[in-house]
Amino acid sequence: MTPPPDELRSLRWNPDVGAVEVIDQTRLPAELCWLRLDTLDACCEAIRDMRVRGAPLIGVTAAFGLACALRQDGSDAQLARALAALLATRPTAVNLRWALQRSADRLRECAPAQRSDSALALALELCEQEIGCCARIGEAGLGLLRQCAGRDVLQVMTHCNAGWLATVAWGTALAPVYRAHAEGLRVHVWVSETRPRNQGAALTAWELQRAGVPCTVVADNACGALLRTGQVDCVIVGSDRTAANGDVCNKVGTYLKALAARASGVPFYVALPTSTIDWDCPTGEAIPIEERDPAEVLTATGADARGRACRVTLAAPGSRAWNPGFDVTPAALVSALVTEYGVSAATPVALAALRERLSAAAAG
Amino acid sequence: MTPPPDELRSLRWNPDVGAVEVIDQTRLPAELCWLRLDTLDACCEAIRDMRVRGAPLIGVTAAFGLACALRQDGSDAQLARALAALLATRPTAVNLRWALQRSADRLRECAPAQRSDSALALALELCEQEIGCCARIGEAGLGLLRQCAGRDVLQVMTHCNAGWLATVAWGTALAPVYRAHAEGLRVHVWVSETRPRNQGAALTAWELQRAGVPCTVVADNACGALLRTGQVDCVIVGSDRTAANGDVCNKVGTYLKALAARASGVPFYVALPTSTIDWDCPTGEAIPIEERDPAEVLTATGADARGRACRVTLAAPGSRAWNPGFDVTPAALVSALVTEYGVSAATPVALAALRERLSAAAAG
Repeated sequence: MTPPPDELRSLRWNPDVGAVEVIDQTRLPAELCWLRLDTLDACCEAIRDMRVRGAPLIGVTAAFGLACALRQDGSDAQLARALAALLATRPTAVNLRWALQRSADRLRECAPAQRSDSALALALELCEQEIGCCARIGEAGLGLLRQCAGRDVLQVMTHCNAGWLATVAWGTALAPVYRAHAEGLRVHVWVSETRPRNQGAALTAWELQRAGVPCTVVADNACGALLRTGQVDCVIVGSDRTAANGDVCNKVGTYLKALAARASGVPFYVALPTSTIDWDCPTGEAIPIEERDPAEVLTATGADARGRACRVTLAAPGSRAWNPGFDVTPAALVSALVTEYGVSAATPVALAALRERLSAAAAG
Repeated sequence: MTPPPDELRSLRWNPDVGAVEVIDQTRLPAELCWLRLDTLDACCEAIRDMRVRGAPLIGVTAAFGLACALRQDGSDAQLARALAALLATRPTAVNLRWALQRSADRLRECAPAQRSDSALALALELCEQEIGCCARIGEAGLGLLRQCAGRDVLQVMTHCNAGWLATVAWGTALAPVYRAHAEGLRVHVWVSETRPRNQGAALTAWELQRAGVPCTVVADNACGALLRTGQVDCVIVGSDRTAANGDVCNKVGTYLKALAARASGVPFYVALPTSTIDWDCPTGEAIPIEERDPAEVLTATGADARGRACRVTLAAPGSRAWNPGFDVTPAALVSALVTEYGVSAATPVALAALRERLSAAAAG
């Protein structure tokens, strides 16, 4: 598979300084600023403050965090401390738990003195795995996009940011779009703003432009009108956590897009690495929803006339707000799940079959 | 009927200076600033730049604009000029057309020298009619709210601003809420932000607080989660234009709330003066949708740390945007229409019956 272009990556290992570097996504889209993460605290802070975001990228960053923590002290106590600190940063992100537990299990088998090197090797391996995983999602999703293509330009809608900024490269929801673009299929992306943090307008529009894919930003409110007036061929989004029945927990507002897609007969696809499937979670109702700071709703952060970051208050003084970070889209509204193993129906039966394939792959 | 409290009005006639005064809604919620409108241009500008907004308030402001225009010159030519200027300000607002044509028809019957006085009398009459109309909508809607009340506090969701700021007093969607509050029914309003212009967060939250009604702002994206998790007893919104089959054209994003309400079995009510029903419009598809400046989507305007109005850019530099002002909610998703004539089904048959009542009332 073609490796991702360097300028379309959100995380890179810098061997010269022996540290991982990430794009500080809170500085986007105003400026492209790389952040060096060489301590556990720096990694925790980067995840907690959403300098890195997106389930796969969080998992990889956490794995590098573990490596940082074990550099001076490879003891069991230090491993446990680092695990706890990293797990506490984002409670809803199942990838984080997955990546950390997988790494911790393997590190416990090493002698304390070797844990630092092993943790780094594991982080680098995870990083390459994530890139390969997204590439395979792109391949599988490309087939679905081809099926939807019926006019000059394929019209895709997405929500939030599930592109190369949210993963290490390629993305989940956007991987098929980048594949289509690379294959010469003409594609245009409708980007929903994604209030309250505007990841669509700020990040997705930025990364699509950087990759040369035409796109148009719309208010989240306009997505119903777009679908109802026949301007969209398919919707494709990511998933922060998928239940064993196919219910999808993703950025708040995803559910509304799914409802509108269904009402207009437009396919609604969810692209995800299988690592974000929570097999212990029978339905979406069991997924705890992270409630974030109400100030995110009452304000907006952008660039002022001089290009400086500026937060403005939008709501009436004294207003209260409720700010759930995610919502649950019931499996019945999901046309298909796209994973690194191909296209699956969002049903308990299809997911059970996928789980068997995963088990077989792990055993083989 | 109790007259509206002076502090809960958005427009007032000032007899001392012989001019109408309106709240400059572009200055809200940061400051309460009254604007004196004593020329046709001032009235046109106030409507076009959304210093006054909301179908009923626009209609009343336009009627005062006609009075201003005829003050120096009551000729047919001047009347035609003023009509054209006012009609051009907001193409989607059917109330505007209705109010102006009704006034113009009556003014043409007067001698040019009397038109100034007549136009003012008509504007004042229209103003009182609008207040009475909203009061009756409140009365009719109160019955629906009582039917939804099943817990300690009635949980109402609304979109955009259809309260006393959007009318002269009381509001349309919020009139039943204010009636319920006045009757001692405990009510709490979920206010959707309403991007891209944030009328919910900025205006609805402001006017509800001013009236002492508890409310909580949410991102438009959170409305699906709110409904799906059983936190809402009913949704009530206004309408900028309603087709003869019951399709509702209202602020963009209304359709998504209606879809989510239906999916969760929550009633979705639309409150409107019958003057906003476009009898010549068979379905919502026939309603032209105003496309507004893309910059509204790419930016947000609020108060900076010092309380000064500030516009920040949210989207990636170079982004394009599409910005429809309204969307169409199909009648099938509307649980009931609430007008000054009571509660009607959103069906062609019920609307035809309503039309007959209106004709009878006009004839009688």
